[in-house]
Amino acid sequence: MKVLVLGGNGFIGSHILDKLLADGHQVRVYDRAPEHFRAPNPKIDYRVGSFDDQISIAEALVGIDVVVHSISTTVPSTSMLDPVADIRENLIGTVNLLGLMEAQKVKKVVYLSSGGTVYGIPDVSPIVEEHPLRPISPYGLVKVAIENYIYMRHKNNGLEYTILRVSNPYGPRQGHGGVQGVIGTYLFKASQGEPLQVWGDGSVIRDFIYIEDLASLIAMSATENVDGIFNAGVGYGLSIADIINKIKNDIAPDVEINYQESRGFDVPAVVLDNTKVTKALSWKPETDFDTGIEKTWEWIKEYNAQQPG
Amino acid sequence: MKVLVLGGNGFIGSHILDKLLADGHQVRVYDRAPEHFRAPNPKIDYRVGSFDDQISIAEALVGIDVVVHSISTTVPSTSMLDPVADIRENLIGTVNLLGLMEAQKVKKVVYLSSGGTVYGIPDVSPIVEEHPLRPISPYGLVKVAIENYIYMRHKNNGLEYTILRVSNPYGPRQGHGGVQGVIGTYLFKASQGEPLQVWGDGSVIRDFIYIEDLASLIAMSATENVDGIFNAGVGYGLSIADIINKIKNDIAPDVEINYQESRGFDVPAVVLDNTKVTKALSWKPETDFDTGIEKTWEWIKEYNAQQPG
Repeated sequence: MKVLVLGGNGFIGSHILDKLLADGHQVRVYDRAPEHFRAPNPKIDYRVGSFDDQISIAEALVGIDVVVHSISTTVPSTSMLDPVADIRENLIGTVNLLGLMEAQKVKKVVYLSSGGTVYGIPDVSPIVEEHPLRPISPYGLVKVAIENYIYMRHKNNGLEYTILRVSNPYGPRQGHGGVQGVIGTYLFKASQGEPLQVWGDGSVIRDFIYIEDLASLIAMSATENVDGIFNAGVGYGLSIADIINKIKNDIAPDVEINYQESRGFDVPAVVLDNTKVTKALSWKPETDFDTGIEKTWEWIKEYNAQQPG
Repeated sequence: MKVLVLGGNGFIGSHILDKLLADGHQVRVYDRAPEHFRAPNPKIDYRVGSFDDQISIAEALVGIDVVVHSISTTVPSTSMLDPVADIRENLIGTVNLLGLMEAQKVKKVVYLSSGGTVYGIPDVSPIVEEHPLRPISPYGLVKVAIENYIYMRHKNNGLEYTILRVSNPYGPRQGHGGVQGVIGTYLFKASQGEPLQVWGDGSVIRDFIYIEDLASLIAMSATENVDGIFNAGVGYGLSIADIINKIKNDIAPDVEINYQESRGFDVPAVVLDNTKVTKALSWKPETDFDTGIEKTWEWIKEYNAQQPG
């Protein structure tokens, strides 16, 4: 199968590429920049461009069977500053993409939605897919709107689709700029002897999925015939305090913790019920948290060792 | 109370103005054009401008307590032709409006959403507000997204809000251009001796609400303290064939009917359960269909009599 991965050079994307190649698929990438942590892979057809460049995207779609759409130009915190930019870039970009896919007769899209933001403040835990969608950030709002446009294309034009409401992925090659991905950010800071920032009292709970488990699910969704919307998480929650404790106990005992005021856009607890996806596909998360965080820590130490100076 | 009615010179808007004035409120209108069927009312402060003119909208918001937002630059059929225009004009326009309202400390918005498009193809009839939102037209999609942005402003910034998912209003001063409002279009054509177009076999069912009943509900929502999302319909359905029969039997016996292929974006049946709104406000629809259509017919005959030649 010929798969185009939009955003394939990002953290999640790069792991999707690995899985698709390992499964013998042909892979094309469309991204605004090369991979940050690895050299280009000669087996991959890379295209560089921005998400609003419709001509380049149309060219990248030629001959493609399935698109995996993992581009987001924003994260929840930046989306609050400019909600209109989020609409312009991500929503309009995706609506245009769906039109181009129709024109090129691309039969399927796999879209990475956001389990942490589309439900808003959940009524129950863990959350099932039928839970009402009441996002409280522009980021989550745009994800919901994109889900709806994909569903409309399915209903009206027969587009096949898998929407994955992804929880919080972590693992090797996650960025550590501090805007997204608390585990990567914490481990990197710990490796540098810097203090860890905690927003609020550390009681915020998330569903953390190891990146290779998530990438397996995405690759499976791209190549198997399963239309629908699915939570993509591990089904249990860990608090920020749990992660801090794990790091202090087993990884970096001397790390300092700075507590700061909580952020309005943080939903208190998000744990995703993954029953629906585990029934639809022969998939379940394989990596427990202790193993996942150890592998991530190993990668960070290796990465640091390769840096000059 | 000082109320700004966005789109106040349109069909629905003009009836909202009447109710608000009758109830003793101060009324300002922002619209791109004057009322089509009546001269300006000296009691109303009219402002002319487009929905993307942020400076004029900011000026129109000065001193306002409540905004009634009844602007839509599209209808379901045109939204299919250019989904991005719908996003740019209606969604981004409303997100900007909400930001300007926050800056001007306007405390409440009443938004006219669309009961006929936000639910998509309903699982049940009549539809309750908790029904999943699965729109199949860009028009309905944008309405859902706007509802979500308003809810976010409520949750994060304390904006008061009433969202009314309006069914199919009809009555005096409805446009009869044929793009929206089947009853007005049919009656006007019948009054001209022209044939009526039916898309499909006439089995499409809608919830038709007489415009003065709807306007009462909107005016009440603007001035009473009731946050939430409500269906705004009569709670029972009539088919296109029912309307055709009513016109042939009681209004224009000689009218010709042309049957045409059904349109993909027409949801087969939409009837809105109005229990929630009738419990929240001391409102219920007062005008039965026979009375409503007679009043509309009277107005059309009067209107025709005033036309030259």
